Amino acid sequence: MSEYLPGLAGVPATKSNISNIDGEKGILTYRGYPLEQLAANSSFEETTLLLLDGELPSAHSLTEFDTQLRSNRVVKYHVRELMKNLPATGHPMDMLQTAVASLGMFYPGNEYLTSGGSGGDLDYVHNMTVKIIARMATIVAMWQYIRNGYDPIAPRSDLTYAENFLYMLNGQEPDKLLAKILDVCLILHAEHTINASTFSVLVTSSTLASPYNVVAGAIGTLSGPLHGGANQKVVEMLTEIGSADKAEEYIDSRLKQKKVIWGMGHREYKTKDPRAKILQRLVQDLVSARGNSVNPMFEVAKVVEDICEDRLAKKGVYANVDFYSGILYTEMGIPTDQFTAIFAVARATGWLAHWREQLKDNRIFRPTQVYIGHSARTYIPIDQR
Amino acid sequence: MSEYLPGLAGVPATKSNISNIDGEKGILTYRGYPLEQLAANSSFEETTLLLLDGELPSAHSLTEFDTQLRSNRVVKYHVRELMKNLPATGHPMDMLQTAVASLGMFYPGNEYLTSGGSGGDLDYVHNMTVKIIARMATIVAMWQYIRNGYDPIAPRSDLTYAENFLYMLNGQEPDKLLAKILDVCLILHAEHTINASTFSVLVTSSTLASPYNVVAGAIGTLSGPLHGGANQKVVEMLTEIGSADKAEEYIDSRLKQKKVIWGMGHREYKTKDPRAKILQRLVQDLVSARGNSVNPMFEVAKVVEDICEDRLAKKGVYANVDFYSGILYTEMGIPTDQFTAIFAVARATGWLAHWREQLKDNRIFRPTQVYIGHSARTYIPIDQR
Repeated sequence: MSEYLPGLAGVPATKSNISNIDGEKGILTYRGYPLEQLAANSSFEETTLLLLDGELPSAHSLTEFDTQLRSNRVVKYHVRELMKNLPATGHPMDMLQTAVASLGMFYPGNEYLTSGGSGGDLDYVHNMTVKIIARMATIVAMWQYIRNGYDPIAPRSDLTYAENFLYMLNGQEPDKLLAKILDVCLILHAEHTINASTFSVLVTSSTLASPYNVVAGAIGTLSGPLHGGANQKVVEMLTEIGSADKAEEYIDSRLKQKKVIWGMGHREYKTKDPRAKILQRLVQDLVSARGNSVNPMFEVAKVVEDICEDRLAKKGVYANVDFYSGILYTEMGIPTDQFTAIFAVARATGWLAHWREQLKDNRIFRPTQVYIGHSARTYIPIDQR
Repeated sequence: MSEYLPGLAGVPATKSNISNIDGEKGILTYRGYPLEQLAANSSFEETTLLLLDGELPSAHSLTEFDTQLRSNRVVKYHVRELMKNLPATGHPMDMLQTAVASLGMFYPGNEYLTSGGSGGDLDYVHNMTVKIIARMATIVAMWQYIRNGYDPIAPRSDLTYAENFLYMLNGQEPDKLLAKILDVCLILHAEHTINASTFSVLVTSSTLASPYNVVAGAIGTLSGPLHGGANQKVVEMLTEIGSADKAEEYIDSRLKQKKVIWGMGHREYKTKDPRAKILQRLVQDLVSARGNSVNPMFEVAKVVEDICEDRLAKKGVYANVDFYSGILYTEMGIPTDQFTAIFAVARATGWLAHWREQLKDNRIFRPTQVYIGHSARTYIPIDQR
């Protein structure tokens, strides 16, 4: 029996060719392409197809895939009515888990996965991938209307993925810069090796559950504050700090109490997360484009990052993806509690790439445990206890 | 870096004191108590408290817990209306994942999990445990009415957990023998170390996601045909075989094609699953009590088991828990596609015991991967591909 390592730290759980991290150098690649190059040159639609299929698509394949995504944005009215029965006070991640799970009832067919050996039915796998990726953005945007008491607006098929999301969220065609920034954010969040939510994808996939069960499970895992929920926590923390001059005392006090500094540190990186670097530049670009010399939350964040670098860099703790994404979304006018839901919309791509990879060489996950409980004992009737 | 073992077979993923399997001897214990003793002497309510708290409860504690369960059976009308928007043709496991995820929006509070160090808020943990265990049975039973186009009937607080489930499922007070058999089935399915769905509980819990996210994720994992979905597959297989004289040809043909024999084999047991033994006796009891000398599906099953024992025992493959549970549920008049949902109702107990255990000594799951993909390469513009 292998050694027990909490959190399976350092234990390989799969063979994968989807993405790779060089934690010393701070490099993340999708299918071999450095994230910076994709952020600078690609679109979310193209990156999605790259992650799913393994190669940059031809112009023809990309158009075909994009057309499929555009024509799959509408959800059935039953899903909309179901969402109207959810409480407006609930968290968007719980809403998203609920809605994605419900979609599985409308699109059955995972029996294909057991009928044809290991790989499953290719049409089913492709069709469900398109349906889920296209509809997740719709659902998150619809929720913004529904929870405010309004009927959601219909998606438009003449807009890109990012443009349509912002259109459905705000009810007006987005500024091109905002749409471009969101597109880059979606690329940055699309995939990140075997983190907790992607690992839960592998575990759920391995029982040959449907992709809706798989993605709904991963949404639940991502929702936790130690995972995707952290970007919301960063904004709450920066708001609590309030101004740059209060940052040092706040951070030192939290460190003394051994509390988490949200958005700092990552098990895989021993330097600054490459996604944090790009996000920080995007915040700067947006602030500058708007002619504002200063965004107060961004100013607090930069000071917090400097203080943390001074205190924590020696431990290999640096800003991670969550540190600047929340500030960026706030500056874009997106409600705080929707941040993690947007993360999930982007990450659905990576999750489904891992689902497809798991199906190709599947073995059900059943690790062991170190049993530390009672040895066998005899039942005692209740009147003798 | 550790060796890569597909499915993490033999890799310890947690320290646990909840249940233990002796696979050579075919012994399963819950908190040290052999399953046979609990099946013979305990109730589902008592076994639940044993699994959650670690000890057999006093009469006072059991009454208090049972009272809490009884008073938590009703779900809000919003959840009922939400369920009415789900398609009647969908699978009950997808319905259950949807409904449990939706409950999380009505009962927020997982911020307690991050506020008080490792253990979380005890009241929150206990209250949510009771809410989920009590409501899951209600939801599964309600669905039987809703999908047939009827308003569900209200739960009754004067009935036991098993009695109330059958009452809500069928609209009449159950035969005492049926309720007793279901009670034993719930005990048998309540917990089983770190199988795939329980493992997904640990992974989701480790991000400090809410227990609704955790259980909804586990429902998705359990739904797969290689896991909880297998009991439904057994009944479909036995129905396809049709009669005992056709069993040999059918089994040999499937073995030759290297196809799964549903309900046979388990990674942990090298002998007959102790749960299968008890379930087989329960089928026999029920058939006898009804004065039927023969149940046709049971007769086919016994022949299939004999043939499989002849062909597969040398490989350590024997009947597992799924082999007889479906036959029993069929004899009890429960619709085939509800079997796995009843499994989930029982297993919620084990899942929540593992959720609580994970919170006490939490580390986020982040295993590694063996990267087998492209080394770094340079982005090629679309017009040059």
